[in-house]
Amino acid sequence: MNPDRLAVTVIGLGSMGSALAGALLDGGHPTTVWNRSPGKAQALLDRGARLAATPGEAVGASPVVVACVLDYQALHTVLDPVADSLAGKVLVNLSSGSPEQAHEAAEWARSHGADYLDGAIMTTPPGVGSPEMMFLYSGSRAVFDANRPTLATLGDPLHLGTDPGLASLYDAALLGLMWSTMTGWLHGTALVRAEKTEATAFTTVAVRWLSAVAGFLTTYARQVDDGRYPGDDATVDVQIATIDHLIHAAAARGIDNALPELLKATMERAREAGHGSDSYASVIEVLKKPAGDR
Amino acid sequence: MNPDRLAVTVIGLGSMGSALAGALLDGGHPTTVWNRSPGKAQALLDRGARLAATPGEAVGASPVVVACVLDYQALHTVLDPVADSLAGKVLVNLSSGSPEQAHEAAEWARSHGADYLDGAIMTTPPGVGSPEMMFLYSGSRAVFDANRPTLATLGDPLHLGTDPGLASLYDAALLGLMWSTMTGWLHGTALVRAEKTEATAFTTVAVRWLSAVAGFLTTYARQVDDGRYPGDDATVDVQIATIDHLIHAAAARGIDNALPELLKATMERAREAGHGSDSYASVIEVLKKPAGDR
Ligand SMILES: NC(=O)c1ccc[n+]([C@@H]2O[C@H](COP(=O)([O-])OP(=O)(O)OC[C@H]3O[C@@H](n4cnc5c(N)ncnc54)[C@H](OP(=O)(O)O)[C@@H]3O)[C@@H](O)[C@H]2O)c1
Ligand SMILES: NC(=O)c1ccc[n+]([C@@H]2O[C@H](COP(=O)([O-])OP(=O)(O)OC[C@H]3O[C@@H](n4cnc5c(N)ncnc54)[C@H](OP(=O)(O)O)[C@@H]3O)[C@@H](O)[C@H]2O)c1
Repeated sequence: MNPDRLAVTVIGLGSMGSALAGALLDGGHPTTVWNRSPGKAQALLDRGARLAATPGEAVGASPVVVACVLDYQALHTVLDPVADSLAGKVLVNLSSGSPEQAHEAAEWARSHGADYLDGAIMTTPPGVGSPEMMFLYSGSRAVFDANRPTLATLGDPLHLGTDPGLASLYDAALLGLMWSTMTGWLHGTALVRAEKTEATAFTTVAVRWLSAVAGFLTTYARQVDDGRYPGDDATVDVQIATIDHLIHAAAARGIDNALPELLKATMERAREAGHGSDSYASVIEVLKKPAGDR
Repeated sequence: MNPDRLAVTVIGLGSMGSALAGALLDGGHPTTVWNRSPGKAQALLDRGARLAATPGEAVGASPVVVACVLDYQALHTVLDPVADSLAGKVLVNLSSGSPEQAHEAAEWARSHGADYLDGAIMTTPPGVGSPEMMFLYSGSRAVFDANRPTLATLGDPLHLGTDPGLASLYDAALLGLMWSTMTGWLHGTALVRAEKTEATAFTTVAVRWLSAVAGFLTTYARQVDDGRYPGDDATVDVQIATIDHLIHAAAARGIDNALPELLKATMERAREAGHGSDSYASVIEVLKKPAGDR
């Protein structure tokens, strides 16, 4: 243990909570742990963690309490009975939930005299402790700054803003990007595999292509903020013409086309709304209102 | 002009063909150009290109002929009348189309005694000439190798295989990945903008997150090739539980949820097919067969 490092308590030793506690131990933090089912603590105790017998003892053991349980309901089940012991502590909640739940938890913590940060972990347990992996936080900037060295033990801490719901909001938005990307990639993978190309060979190219796509996103983000979508590079009309190659090639190989059909229909709505000569970024105009609502 | 560089003809001077001819001129290649509407050649002639009066003269001027017109129909409109002049030439077709059209064009070129490479350009015109940008080729490996230095003037040339349809197939698959990624990103952008976050601020985080997602794709590609999808990191069941946060947060802010609803339905089909405890890569099993076809 390193005497310069703050003592930290970790509540919740599922696969993620265990990874968090492990990274804190690796970083030299005196680490106290608690989990509903006590068996999960053993590996961490062997590495030097201390076991708290109750949630109250766990909260009392350290100035910083990191909670990583299933959801906000589990968080309240564990902490509501010992809420008064949170006075003067920093509660860092890394359990996933909605922006609304984060707002409520921030208010609840404040009413019990605790500082509160809401966080979202943008990696899987093996990525915890790596400085490349993003941990998103929202809530008080001062609390974030004061605890940055401790948070940096877990990954790269980014402060999104003082609204406590922002970490959950970004989390949802980024996971949506992930599912879209993964499903588009699986569709393309199914297509090339129908012609005996290995997924690994295709994916080497796909990963390189994703960096080019990331460049388009950066260009388009400025257009979205400006509310102007100049179609200098490729217009919505051109994309609509091109997507038929994908749809025909996939249909000919017996691959489900629900995703490209939806993308095409969305582009067509953008064209109907007058964005045919605009860039793809203009599609956000039709996403802002539900399809039934035009 | 550099005497070590092969003479090259470019047919088609739209925005992409003009960029290709410009990169060849920059690379020191004696460059002959032809376009249906002659006015578009002037800027290139000022940079040292030579203008061919007819497609036949254009083909005759160089051992390598790069064609970049709207589509395969336009390609045949231009080259069919002068097909015999292609004997002994290398025809590099960078016009977009389907794998089937590439097969036909390869056969047509062969019957006229020409070597043929089919290509797909994975960038927009401003990216042409950059060694980071991928140009995908399929067809004879020997023809590709012999012409690699010339092709490298345009971007980074990758040979996908001898089947001439592969470049078009990859093109379709990669564009599908791009549309999915861009639409998922626009949905997330609409969500955070509803809470007064700028698209540019969100996109800085989203672009970093995409590199983490690219890491997941690399892991999952191996699973797809193995046909085994161990759910160690995150299972389909966990993703289904999490996507509701996105759907609720977006619905509460009046954002169209057709994309996340489709992604959720696709995951649910994977769960019904027995992949609830498998990784997201298992979703490919349900994409392999159309939804009506179970
Ligand atoms: N795994 C990831 O890749 C990942 C990534 C980002 C975010 N997260 C988030 O991190 C959080 C934890 O995920 P995980 O992967 O560690 O899940 P997990 O392995 O299923 O662990 C769940 C944890 O929550 C506890 N728990 C559940 N219900 C409880 C209750 N009613 N009272 C007290 N404790 C309760 C469990 O205690 P028991 O051991 O007693 O069951 C366990 O410690 C979730 O919000 C998840 O969304 C996970
Ligand atoms: N722009 C991009 O970002 C991009 C990226 C990757 C691939 N591509 C592909 O590159 C190809 C060209 O695209 P582009 O952006 O250069 O398009 P463009 O600016 O619209 O140019 C189209 C070209 O095709 C010619 N053309 C069209 N119909 C013809 C016909 N019937 N006979 C003879 N010539 C004809 C046009 O000649 P006129 O000048 O006489 O009309 C012009 O040279 C397309 O297949 C496109 O999919 C483009």
